[in-house]
Amino acid sequence: LAFSIKAESESPRLVSTQDDIAEMRLAIEKPGSFKTKFEQQKRSVDKQMEQAITVPVPADGGGGYTHERHKKNYKLMYQAGMLFQLTQDKKYADLVRDMLLQYADLYPTLDVHPKRKAGANNPGKLFWQSLNEAVWLVYSIQAYDFVLPNLTEKEITKIEQGIFRPIVKFLSVDSPATFNKVHNHGTWLTSGVGMAGYVLNEPEWVEQALYDLDKSGKGGFLKQLDELFSPQGYYNEGPYYQRYALMPFITFAKAIETNEPERKIFEYRDGIVLKAITTTIQLSYNGLFFPINDAIKSKGIDTIELVNGVTIAYGLTGDTGLLEIAQIQDQIILTGDGLKVAQALDAGKATPYEFESVAFGDGADGTQGALVIMRQASSNKATETDSQAVLFKPAAQGLGHGHFDKLTWQFYDKGAEIVSDYGAARFLNVEAKYGGRYLPENKTYAKQTISHNTVVVDERSHFDANLEKGNANHPEHLFFVNDKNVKLSSATIDSAYEGVELTRTLALINLPEQDQTLVIDVFDVNSKKQHQFDLPVHYQGQFIDSNFALNANDKTMSALGNENGYQHLWLKAQATPDAGLARVTWLHDNGRFYTQSSIETGDSQILFTQIGANDPNFNLRNENAFIHRVKNTKKHSFISVLEPHGEYNPSKEFTISATSKVSGLAHVDNDNVTAVLITFLDGKEWVLAYNKQSVTKTKKSEFSLKGKKYKFSGQYLLQKITK
Amino acid sequence: LAFSIKAESESPRLVSTQDDIAEMRLAIEKPGSFKTKFEQQKRSVDKQMEQAITVPVPADGGGGYTHERHKKNYKLMYQAGMLFQLTQDKKYADLVRDMLLQYADLYPTLDVHPKRKAGANNPGKLFWQSLNEAVWLVYSIQAYDFVLPNLTEKEITKIEQGIFRPIVKFLSVDSPATFNKVHNHGTWLTSGVGMAGYVLNEPEWVEQALYDLDKSGKGGFLKQLDELFSPQGYYNEGPYYQRYALMPFITFAKAIETNEPERKIFEYRDGIVLKAITTTIQLSYNGLFFPINDAIKSKGIDTIELVNGVTIAYGLTGDTGLLEIAQIQDQIILTGDGLKVAQALDAGKATPYEFESVAFGDGADGTQGALVIMRQASSNKATETDSQAVLFKPAAQGLGHGHFDKLTWQFYDKGAEIVSDYGAARFLNVEAKYGGRYLPENKTYAKQTISHNTVVVDERSHFDANLEKGNANHPEHLFFVNDKNVKLSSATIDSAYEGVELTRTLALINLPEQDQTLVIDVFDVNSKKQHQFDLPVHYQGQFIDSNFALNANDKTMSALGNENGYQHLWLKAQATPDAGLARVTWLHDNGRFYTQSSIETGDSQILFTQIGANDPNFNLRNENAFIHRVKNTKKHSFISVLEPHGEYNPSKEFTISATSKVSGLAHVDNDNVTAVLITFLDGKEWVLAYNKQSVTKTKKSEFSLKGKKYKFSGQYLLQKITK
Ligand SMILES: [Zn+2]
Ligand SMILES: [Zn+2]
Repeated sequence: LAFSIKAESESPRLVSTQDDIAEMRLAIEKPGSFKTKFEQQKRSVDKQMEQAITVPVPADGGGGYTHERHKKNYKLMYQAGMLFQLTQDKKYADLVRDMLLQYADLYPTLDVHPKRKAGANNPGKLFWQSLNEAVWLVYSIQAYDFVLPNLTEKEITKIEQGIFRPIVKFLSVDSPATFNKVHNHGTWLTSGVGMAGYVLNEPEWVEQALYDLDKSGKGGFLKQLDELFSPQGYYNEGPYYQRYALMPFITFAKAIETNEPERKIFEYRDGIVLKAITTTIQLSYNGLFFPINDAIKSKGIDTIELVNGVTIAYGLTGDTGLLEIAQIQDQIILTGDGLKVAQALDAGKATPYEFESVAFGDGADGTQGALVIMRQASSNKATETDSQAVLFKPAAQGLGHGHFDKLTWQFYDKGAEIVSDYGAARFLNVEAKYGGRYLPENKTYAKQTISHNTVVVDERSHFDANLEKGNANHPEHLFFVNDKNVKLSSATIDSAYEGVELTRTLALINLPEQDQTLVIDVFDVNSKKQHQFDLPVHYQGQFIDSNFALNANDKTMSALGNENGYQHLWLKAQATPDAGLARVTWLHDNGRFYTQSSIETGDSQILFTQIGANDPNFNLRNENAFIHRVKNTKKHSFISVLEPHGEYNPSKEFTISATSKVSGLAHVDNDNVTAVLITFLDGKEWVLAYNKQSVTKTKKSEFSLKGKKYKFSGQYLLQKITK
Repeated sequence: LAFSIKAESESPRLVSTQDDIAEMRLAIEKPGSFKTKFEQQKRSVDKQMEQAITVPVPADGGGGYTHERHKKNYKLMYQAGMLFQLTQDKKYADLVRDMLLQYADLYPTLDVHPKRKAGANNPGKLFWQSLNEAVWLVYSIQAYDFVLPNLTEKEITKIEQGIFRPIVKFLSVDSPATFNKVHNHGTWLTSGVGMAGYVLNEPEWVEQALYDLDKSGKGGFLKQLDELFSPQGYYNEGPYYQRYALMPFITFAKAIETNEPERKIFEYRDGIVLKAITTTIQLSYNGLFFPINDAIKSKGIDTIELVNGVTIAYGLTGDTGLLEIAQIQDQIILTGDGLKVAQALDAGKATPYEFESVAFGDGADGTQGALVIMRQASSNKATETDSQAVLFKPAAQGLGHGHFDKLTWQFYDKGAEIVSDYGAARFLNVEAKYGGRYLPENKTYAKQTISHNTVVVDERSHFDANLEKGNANHPEHLFFVNDKNVKLSSATIDSAYEGVELTRTLALINLPEQDQTLVIDVFDVNSKKQHQFDLPVHYQGQFIDSNFALNANDKTMSALGNENGYQHLWLKAQATPDAGLARVTWLHDNGRFYTQSSIETGDSQILFTQIGANDPNFNLRNENAFIHRVKNTKKHSFISVLEPHGEYNPSKEFTISATSKVSGLAHVDNDNVTAVLITFLDGKEWVLAYNKQSVTKTKKSEFSLKGKKYKFSGQYLLQKITK
């Protein structure tokens, strides 16, 4: 077998090593943020130790007393175990020993948990599901590893026979479906069992954890690393679940590295563990994760899973940019890598972390569509953090937590969401709100297409909101350009609706000469039959103005539709703008104005809506949108420009550039080339043209505009028109 | 005459003195925040000096080109003049001289401003109204004072004859109504003229500025100090206008002190100028002014007028608490007092500013009702700034900017508005929103009673929204108690509605034993005839839960009423809670839950509303309220308790105490005593009782509760009931 058995005296041997411990013992003698954290944790554990040990017979489901008690127990054992290593004070080791002895008494008496759902295939014993049981094992085996030097042979036998061997058996050979499954629950099970293998000197467990129970490689930790992440480290449920999934990957990988460095686990699949960590960071704006799919919006990079991730990544790479993230996280971890982070932060070594424009290919092979992030510094930037981001989502469905939002986009500016996604409809752990679970409105509104900024055909959601169909199909990502002043991406899908092809091209451009950034959106819809097409813009802020008349439903208003999310939208007003340029301006709390200018046909409508209809328990946030609607149409291009401008500063009593500078917009579709012409109030004109297919840098394209021919090489042309 | 004429070489002689300048010249040689500010201002002025001087013929109204140009000119002259004093670089003095010479050429040619409103009695010449003309004089006379040592006799003659003597004449003897008026516009005129009197050696002007044109004392600056502030320094339009009014008071007072210290202007009326400054600070929460009357909510203590106020107050008192405010303001002023603030801040002398519980008597004599601020540290306080405040408003009308909101309240906690006031309906300077002026909805909604948290009778506003009636009547403030754990205040008014007496008693209490703070609200309505009474709670946050069923208007909803603000409220849902305790819980973005528990009769209703009906231009913010409604009633007491509780932390994934701990509420009305009994889930009971009249500390009161007699001395009793 691949790893040599170590003596018990070589404890600890998982996330932190004996060398780490030696360094940490020195560090807690000197002032610094590591010592501060150590003392804080010591106070917390000392306080908990005033209470008697309680290892209750499992009775309650998630959130209930016994569930929470067993969670507290594994955290306390882990922390006390580490304190024993750091202080060598036996009282901490005794706590872990006594608690584990009680578990060793209890565990053999347990059948599956009484709150196990009938027919559920992932039961636990201490907890209602095996996921929590595995998390218990991941923490407790580390605690056990910490205190091993303080245990007698007899205690070791009792603990291993009473709890660790039975729980490993229960989570592996007795739970083959979950253990072998390529899914984040499986990662917790394989990680717990594998780490127990190192500590109990059972190389076979490690092999099974890595390669499936039958060691075929069809399941297990490595297969999970192969399939749950794209080659760039993107997890297809989105960042909210990615940061959650991260924890067992990084923990077990670290333990593998400690015990069997020859496996080069951190080099596996071209460094996929590290990529998974850095991609999680990249999938954030102003500290918060992009809220795609089922995501709670306040979750951000300071989440404990990513604190661990950044700590381990810094330990591996010494990348000082990661220290800036650690600084924002402001949480020191008591591990060897945590010490390195603390010392580097104390020494002021942090450098700015580079947030990049990236197209993250989706799916295990990276070809199932993509999640595209385009960024640039805001041209009129006020602060270092004043950057812009466009999220473009021609990504795969993202399994059960995915939303029916193919080709949707979001826009961020000056620290805030401007064109937004609802995120998940959920009040986490708030009992009064549907027990703290996903609200019914998560399905009836948040997952539906109309709650996103993408085209809805005939008021039906993509794939008719059928998850299986969603999982079986994905958009094709056509191209991505990341030049200094132009970020450009395009994607298409013909499976969201039968007989309808949706193609969207988004550009985030910067016109330095005019001190202006813009988002250009070209959404082409092409169908065999006539349909109604709706393209919503869910905006954050206060409506200021439109250059067309609104017909407000001002004494009575009704829901916009009956199903697929439409039943949750109040129709506040409607308009039929004249042919030409339609403008909608709103003001965000961040003090900046935003204008969307769009090309109107003269018979298209704009509907103004607010979330809140058919919501008798007031579960939804009352946010606003406007919806571009065309009816009885086979082919349509929605063309628009989003323009951030000006400043509203009532505190200092000034308002500047409250009105849009875009005075005209034209669209030309020439064979392979689409061109958008933007005219500004001062007469300046710019054209953005692109070849609709992915082309090489030398490929020549041409198009005509206002009787003049233009040629360009490569994917696009951004040019000022001289008259 | 009272002041001795100083030679021209004694310039400057207004806000900063020669001694100040000497100190400032030393300070700009040494590193520190004063020098930093000086260099910043110098860069700004140097940049503006690259442009040619422009003194255009007046043409435009407020916001227009010539209006803004003349405003920029006086600011530039003031800053350049001060730079000349500090650097002794003649180029700055030459700028002021050249500009003033151009004004001296222009001014004698001007008639009243072309944009003067027909029939308006306060025209300007450089500006459309005399207010701006006076502000021009206040700044320009200081600039002139700064550069006097650099002017020839001929230049002096030209400037004084061409501009200063004519503008003083125009603003004083030619504008007697405005000059003599006891109003903040009058303060600017008297201040400008008085300061010009010191500089041009015209003691008569000073006398007129102080005592009315006829020196009778019926008008003028001192009369303004007598009447525009209450004895405690409260300005009855509220803090938003108070900070604006402050500027000419403090500027002219400082100039008086410099020239005629024997007038003891800062001791005048028991130190009213200083009180006006500190009261403005006190009328804020978390840096923002309480938004009563026509107030834009983002205005706070960092406003430039209060920066000047705090600077002068620190110069007078050396109170290091003011330095904490200056720290928050983060703006250094280039004056003698500004230097003192800068040096003290650099030396780390700032100490916490004490925000207090105060009843500010309203009106010139302090007896026209009161504005009551009750504060306490939040018992479960997380940070230093985690304090609570109740604003209770049995104040006078507050003139033209006043709202019809007698006895309304607001509640603030954990940095945020919880029970809120709409403030003004206005987007300052946003042309698309009604020219940036007060929106029509300011009158149709924001000023109306229903937009406040006070009782509305028969869907009509207080005084039927008649300003004259409002100004002629005011509530009677009955008492105010400011004890450690109990802040208590009561007031009554019988003139808001004919035949209806409204009496409200609010208490902000702290039960340290239970780690709980509460607001107790007793609103007694007593009328001769039957009426409908509505008591709204405008809350900020997301509705979580009620302990009674809601009947939601979920497919169609309509405006609640037709006029007096009701036409702007959508009726989202209604309920008729059972007799007993009704609970409404919401969650604020600050992460805390709030529950209002109220006593219901069984036939009273609760209506859930959202602002936005009859708002065809989307001018209003879509905020939520619930309204307690009783119909066909002569006498009713609305009894409620507001309870902050728990924490929602989706980022760290925990939620604690999401439900109310109040399980019962009872109300006893015994002759002179009202008692409210609060029962908690754990069985603990507390009674708050108070004598309804203002009584002495020794006055004995008694009441019966559940068959038991209670006695207390003084205004109130807060007692835990033992069984
Ligand atoms: Zn979504
Ligand atoms: Zn108001």
